[in-house]
Amino acid sequence: MEMSLKALDYESLNENVKNCQYAVRGELYLRASELQKEGKKIIFTNVGNPHALGQKPLTFPRQVVALCQAPFLLDDPNIGMIFPADAIARAKHYLSLTSGGLGAYSDSRGLPGVRKEVAEFIERRDGYPSDPELIFLTDGASKGVMQILNCVIRSQKDGILVPVPQYPLYSATISLLGGTLVPYYLEESENWGLDVNNLRQSVAQARSQGITVRAMVIINPGNPTGQCLSEANLREILRFCCDERLVLLGDEVYQQNIYQDERPFISSKKVLMDMRAPISKEVQLISFHTVSKGYWGECGQRGGYFEMTNIPPRTVEEIYKVASIALSPNVSAQIFMGLMVSPPKPGDISHDQFVRESKGILESLRRRARMMTDGFNSCKNVVCNFTEGAMYSFPQIKLPSKAIEAAKQAGKVPDVFYCLKLLEATGISTVPGSGFGQKEGVFHLRTTILPAEEEMPEIMDSFKKFNDEFMSQYGDNFGYSRM
Amino acid sequence: MEMSLKALDYESLNENVKNCQYAVRGELYLRASELQKEGKKIIFTNVGNPHALGQKPLTFPRQVVALCQAPFLLDDPNIGMIFPADAIARAKHYLSLTSGGLGAYSDSRGLPGVRKEVAEFIERRDGYPSDPELIFLTDGASKGVMQILNCVIRSQKDGILVPVPQYPLYSATISLLGGTLVPYYLEESENWGLDVNNLRQSVAQARSQGITVRAMVIINPGNPTGQCLSEANLREILRFCCDERLVLLGDEVYQQNIYQDERPFISSKKVLMDMRAPISKEVQLISFHTVSKGYWGECGQRGGYFEMTNIPPRTVEEIYKVASIALSPNVSAQIFMGLMVSPPKPGDISHDQFVRESKGILESLRRRARMMTDGFNSCKNVVCNFTEGAMYSFPQIKLPSKAIEAAKQAGKVPDVFYCLKLLEATGISTVPGSGFGQKEGVFHLRTTILPAEEEMPEIMDSFKKFNDEFMSQYGDNFGYSRM
Repeated sequence: MEMSLKALDYESLNENVKNCQYAVRGELYLRASELQKEGKKIIFTNVGNPHALGQKPLTFPRQVVALCQAPFLLDDPNIGMIFPADAIARAKHYLSLTSGGLGAYSDSRGLPGVRKEVAEFIERRDGYPSDPELIFLTDGASKGVMQILNCVIRSQKDGILVPVPQYPLYSATISLLGGTLVPYYLEESENWGLDVNNLRQSVAQARSQGITVRAMVIINPGNPTGQCLSEANLREILRFCCDERLVLLGDEVYQQNIYQDERPFISSKKVLMDMRAPISKEVQLISFHTVSKGYWGECGQRGGYFEMTNIPPRTVEEIYKVASIALSPNVSAQIFMGLMVSPPKPGDISHDQFVRESKGILESLRRRARMMTDGFNSCKNVVCNFTEGAMYSFPQIKLPSKAIEAAKQAGKVPDVFYCLKLLEATGISTVPGSGFGQKEGVFHLRTTILPAEEEMPEIMDSFKKFNDEFMSQYGDNFGYSRM
Repeated sequence: MEMSLKALDYESLNENVKNCQYAVRGELYLRASELQKEGKKIIFTNVGNPHALGQKPLTFPRQVVALCQAPFLLDDPNIGMIFPADAIARAKHYLSLTSGGLGAYSDSRGLPGVRKEVAEFIERRDGYPSDPELIFLTDGASKGVMQILNCVIRSQKDGILVPVPQYPLYSATISLLGGTLVPYYLEESENWGLDVNNLRQSVAQARSQGITVRAMVIINPGNPTGQCLSEANLREILRFCCDERLVLLGDEVYQQNIYQDERPFISSKKVLMDMRAPISKEVQLISFHTVSKGYWGECGQRGGYFEMTNIPPRTVEEIYKVASIALSPNVSAQIFMGLMVSPPKPGDISHDQFVRESKGILESLRRRARMMTDGFNSCKNVVCNFTEGAMYSFPQIKLPSKAIEAAKQAGKVPDVFYCLKLLEATGISTVPGSGFGQKEGVFHLRTTILPAEEEMPEIMDSFKKFNDEFMSQYGDNFGYSRM
């Protein structure tokens, strides 16, 4: 049998490839794409992709990168009619950091000059030194996460603690690398808080099954859950990582997206540095950031970085070596990263416009987070924690037993069944909670808060109308799925 | 011991990560970077990175992508003073293919409209239909190769046939994925030709060691060896792949870089389609291309594609799923790819300039290929095949036994020893042949043919002078390393 198969026949593929699941672009997305082809209007809220839903790019960074792409414009006598002087100056600055413009491979860690700007940003943010040699630029944060997990995972006996619900980058990458996901549950009724006792139990249970737990992932602000971790919580997590000798992977790609004032974003690096030795010198921490999220939303550019703390130099060399195999991250996104960490300063020609555009987006996101939470909570079979940060709403849908039965008949997981019906009825393309993980017997969906603000009331009305009809079709007196 | 280590301590890293080697940015490159920091002038010929060595970008594609980055310019009344009308029209065309401009993630396979343009290019090139659904855009060709090998390699019992000398992307990726590289030797004395009998022997030997050979890599035009495969040779290879049920990975990233007329580039796809069934319907083929090479040299943009032939739909779905985990390739490079496969047409405003620039680069590369080959062959202990295509010269250096002894004393592989001395003496940063693989007891170096044409005589003089001094220091009467 084996002999008659070819290497790219399905039956003979690497099982790790076949085993991985990535719901954000899974069944729901594929069906939505089909419907779109057939002419139906689809609202793609399955992925945090702000520009796809009409968010305009910030002007200044686009001016700078456009000039870097067309450096011959810098000699054009008419250039000042089209581009402001500070954008021209910044383009010259970034070109001077490259060795041949955007068309030349950079060092595999990224341009040294941009890594220096990132380090300065981290120092300003945290109040602690940051070393450019320990910052690597990547094609989006996802690629960085994959590089690090590749170093950590040696076999299926290696476990990675991942929050549930989680962003499926983690589950998919762990499957692909042949490791084991060790879940720890976030508490929905505690505003998706993290209980360190749950962590201990998860680790103990994994160990009893022969798993070596090697790393822990936190997503702060949370995806899909939208919560901000408190400083006290972060301190407990770091202490736990120190005790258990775990590498902490801090996915902090939503650090600029905060929609309340009580719980600001605090970086894992800062909390770690605030702690006493030996913890501050012991815990291995990798922190991730990106140009895709924040109010920039430059997803399609694929720019990110990770910073390494307490990682031995020989390991840094190994990570560098592996990064070298694909030569270099794309250079234009490296420049977006430089611009994101060093935006126009007060007094610069473009400063006011930049601030106006940035505030406009962030304030609107804050209003949209509120509209969405309120919209979901106005349905009596839906409960939804407020989106404190990130760009998602993750309501729990209490499904009647008749709906669960109907899903079973249709061969679908109940929340997939619900989300498919929602898609067909309204064009709203969400991701079922089962794609992120959830406790047994409860059901969610994830939607981004990104549709245009003016469209939000109509979208939430359309959701409510669908949900009411769904409930009148499947509602019964036999009870709901449990809270 | 294991318990006291942390996951990112060197001793506890994934062994596959530690085992992989990537010489193109290895010891020589690191030493060159150090010397550059110390103020020494370095000629980086270690990697095919044309813009880093002064090649100017083609104007038209840069104009189009600059406009796509700054779409607000399209409404500027002064835009026509800076950009030609056909660049403006093409920018509007590409923006219409996106769903939110360059800042939005595209489909994980790339923009459908660009994939259609790639398919049309392949149809024109080969005279056979090409299906956009079987073309995936990638962040450079390397990423595509890694995705495909990830599907093929299941364990260290899976073998991949790789030419020796080879581009170390292959050896490094196979190590990283935990597979086994099965070498087949190219014949230096036959102008780096490929003998199918050698292939058979390699496969037989691997099988006798319990290896399942699953795929075969060809690099055409060759890297580092610079040869073009003949149609007859490609036909033998395809027949061999059919007999042995191997997937063929056709690395064709240098297809535009041809420096002679006797042996033009012919794609594996065309040769396969020219053959009779069952071969034409049986052989699984993946072909790779990029915007990094050719006369474009847009390495830093990170754009590539692969086309799949005879791959079952379920496997295509799996490859799509895995591509989805990192969401999408960067969008600006997708547009570069679109432009590369559909350049300005005769009659377009920018056509003449585009052709002038393109010809200028290609003709100069052809002259440089000749200058370099002749320069190496003018040294009596150096022999070098002519660079028929690609962008490298791969001379064999016959090292005297005294030099081999000195290298041994210094703890270095002999060609590394030679290349380090060359670097220190001249600033020329090459890659030792051992980084690509070579027969036992023979030594090479790889250099690109990319230094500016006007600098080439000086570089070759400087090489010759170094080599003469090296030979007078280490030369002896006891013989050379064998030819």
